[in-house]
Amino acid sequence: MSAEIICVGTELLLGDIVNTNVQFLAKELANLGIPHYYQTVVGDNPTRLKEVINIASNRASILLFTGGLGPTPDDLTTETIAQCFNCPLVEKAEIIEDIQRKFAARGRQMNENNRKQALIPEGATILPNPTGTAPGIIWEPAPNLTIMTFPGVPSEMKRMWAETAIAHLKSQGWGKEVIFSRMLRFRGIGESALATKVNRFFDLTNPTVAPYASLGEVRLRISTKTASESQANSIIEPIAQEIIKIAGADYFGKDDDTLSEVVGTLLREKQQTVAVAESCTGGGLGTMFTDIAGSSDYFWGGVIAYDNRVKMSLLGVGSEALKAHGAVSDIVAQQMALGVKQRLNTSWGISITGIAGPGGGTEIKPVGLVYIGIADPDGQVDSIECTFGDRDRPIIRYLSSCTALDQLRRKLI
Amino acid sequence: MSAEIICVGTELLLGDIVNTNVQFLAKELANLGIPHYYQTVVGDNPTRLKEVINIASNRASILLFTGGLGPTPDDLTTETIAQCFNCPLVEKAEIIEDIQRKFAARGRQMNENNRKQALIPEGATILPNPTGTAPGIIWEPAPNLTIMTFPGVPSEMKRMWAETAIAHLKSQGWGKEVIFSRMLRFRGIGESALATKVNRFFDLTNPTVAPYASLGEVRLRISTKTASESQANSIIEPIAQEIIKIAGADYFGKDDDTLSEVVGTLLREKQQTVAVAESCTGGGLGTMFTDIAGSSDYFWGGVIAYDNRVKMSLLGVGSEALKAHGAVSDIVAQQMALGVKQRLNTSWGISITGIAGPGGGTEIKPVGLVYIGIADPDGQVDSIECTFGDRDRPIIRYLSSCTALDQLRRKLI
Repeated sequence: MSAEIICVGTELLLGDIVNTNVQFLAKELANLGIPHYYQTVVGDNPTRLKEVINIASNRASILLFTGGLGPTPDDLTTETIAQCFNCPLVEKAEIIEDIQRKFAARGRQMNENNRKQALIPEGATILPNPTGTAPGIIWEPAPNLTIMTFPGVPSEMKRMWAETAIAHLKSQGWGKEVIFSRMLRFRGIGESALATKVNRFFDLTNPTVAPYASLGEVRLRISTKTASESQANSIIEPIAQEIIKIAGADYFGKDDDTLSEVVGTLLREKQQTVAVAESCTGGGLGTMFTDIAGSSDYFWGGVIAYDNRVKMSLLGVGSEALKAHGAVSDIVAQQMALGVKQRLNTSWGISITGIAGPGGGTEIKPVGLVYIGIADPDGQVDSIECTFGDRDRPIIRYLSSCTALDQLRRKLI
Repeated sequence: MSAEIICVGTELLLGDIVNTNVQFLAKELANLGIPHYYQTVVGDNPTRLKEVINIASNRASILLFTGGLGPTPDDLTTETIAQCFNCPLVEKAEIIEDIQRKFAARGRQMNENNRKQALIPEGATILPNPTGTAPGIIWEPAPNLTIMTFPGVPSEMKRMWAETAIAHLKSQGWGKEVIFSRMLRFRGIGESALATKVNRFFDLTNPTVAPYASLGEVRLRISTKTASESQANSIIEPIAQEIIKIAGADYFGKDDDTLSEVVGTLLREKQQTVAVAESCTGGGLGTMFTDIAGSSDYFWGGVIAYDNRVKMSLLGVGSEALKAHGAVSDIVAQQMALGVKQRLNTSWGISITGIAGPGGGTEIKPVGLVYIGIADPDGQVDSIECTFGDRDRPIIRYLSSCTALDQLRRKLI
């Protein structure tokens, strides 16, 4: 017993839109504990759609369709499904009335094209669409096979899912056991290095532990399937604690925690404030701090010192340091951090200076070389050298800001 | 002859991430004129992946895989593909060396886990990954069947596609007649208002003209399918020029032009410089300016004045203005713009002060109220009031920075 999601739409094959529908449905299926092994996208082509339906109905027991329910001739999902099961279509008077009412409410008349949206397979029930003109269906064309169709418009699909589909699936017995998971998030350690440290947890079967890597961050997901959240917590929590202990300072948060949120919480707890001095990131670190609503409690501002004249005039960086060591150096990073802390009168000052590329690199100072300076509440200044390698400019800038936040986090814990 | 995209990753089935890779590849296939009828997502499960490969290799001649190339035990794409075609894996010394070099460049040691990333099917060639440790393969395991694999990390996949995959597909004869299109980009006008102005172009068949709307921006895509770019240009250019003339100052650029690029080009032409003073955007406007490599020619820096004390100390905003009008006001925006221009000694000063929400709004000054100030080279100061409405914080911040850039653009043209 598993579900399969089938998204119908040539616009998906042309890459005109991102398929957010499939992500939404995937998450919802996971929440209901419905296993789901395949997602298929196919264009508005009845022959190929039929092939997809035949394959899917042999390997899944719930087929969820999105797209192809509109009024235009290329919207063929409903009739193609019916054909696959040799079932005639019947016109539903209540759908026609509903469409007419919706048109009337917008001061318009129903178009003849819309009449086709009232045709559904004989024996199917209507999956009502409260906002749009395209209803879906709930249909069991064969034993152990449930078909549900949704329009491609995300807002309509989501509301139909929430208001009708979930209840139907629960009536089939789903949703009694649900997948709960916790994501543990790590910085400053690579995927394989972390995997080596926590290797033994990957063999667990309940909960399961699986690694994910994304830019500058590694995550471990701990999952279990249970009837209640408290039961899930009692299974997940001990494993989470063991892993967090092993990871030490590299663990920074869980689930939707962001670095700037975690750092913000630490600063608020200590009633400390911070200011930034940014060169190559040009405001990216300040943006991350202020992503968080309420960050004015601890983030006061900073200086974007892109040009060396600004480093000198607003941050007090010495012209000798710039001449002797260059703007991308430990000493300038330190002077920037201390300068912004002193001028803005905050507990902490953090600076970033580096070569984001693609130009500007030399053999001694290549693209990706970045210095991060931190001035602490006692006025002590520290800096680290990062080598992010010859990567794309936005990536180097993003990693620079993240690393600066992470350095501050490590000093705060 | 058609392509099929197969994305491997349990995180996609769980809905943890949006599948932007498939959209990118779909667009690229369309650009090369390669037909593409199916997209499949499957988890990190060798049995099911095999089934998917069997189905796909019977209906497509180019299979593009993303995901499952990492160093952990659940990354199984390469070995599963090899098994489908009964082909042994061989270890490539050059991959090991490349991985070791990348680890060394980041001051780390290669992990034993990474060794599996050097295993590729006998007879396959390496699809180099310039930035990450997971190379892909280009392989023809059977006549008329090309397999290419890419890691799931979007930035790595995209670079491998651009640097290697496209050339390989062109060498197979693809990309002779391709869809050429020009995207015209507009700011400060709504989709329906623009559509009304250029209505008559929507009936054209060659080129076709279609509207797209995104946050704060409207685009018109002019497309034609031809053998050469010059031929495409001769079809597209006259229509583009007509539309640009009709749109006037609301047209800001084409294709991948960004607002900050367009503004940067204008500043460079005039040999003028700019500095920013940001409150609610916290560095977002500076980040946009410095997204552009070489922006140091005209962007000198700025002040992130999140706290009012910073507005006063670093920008010279008067305490009377703050008391009488509040930080979110025309007069404070103007003082910030003039202050940063004078202190950084640039041609232009731009400021942003507003209420990004979700908290902090009042009846008189609701969430979404933003003032943008501009001080021009003559020292004249101007400001505008924007009401972005009760939208999400990141959206209000993004629209604020875009509008500030657009205001400067309108002053520069």
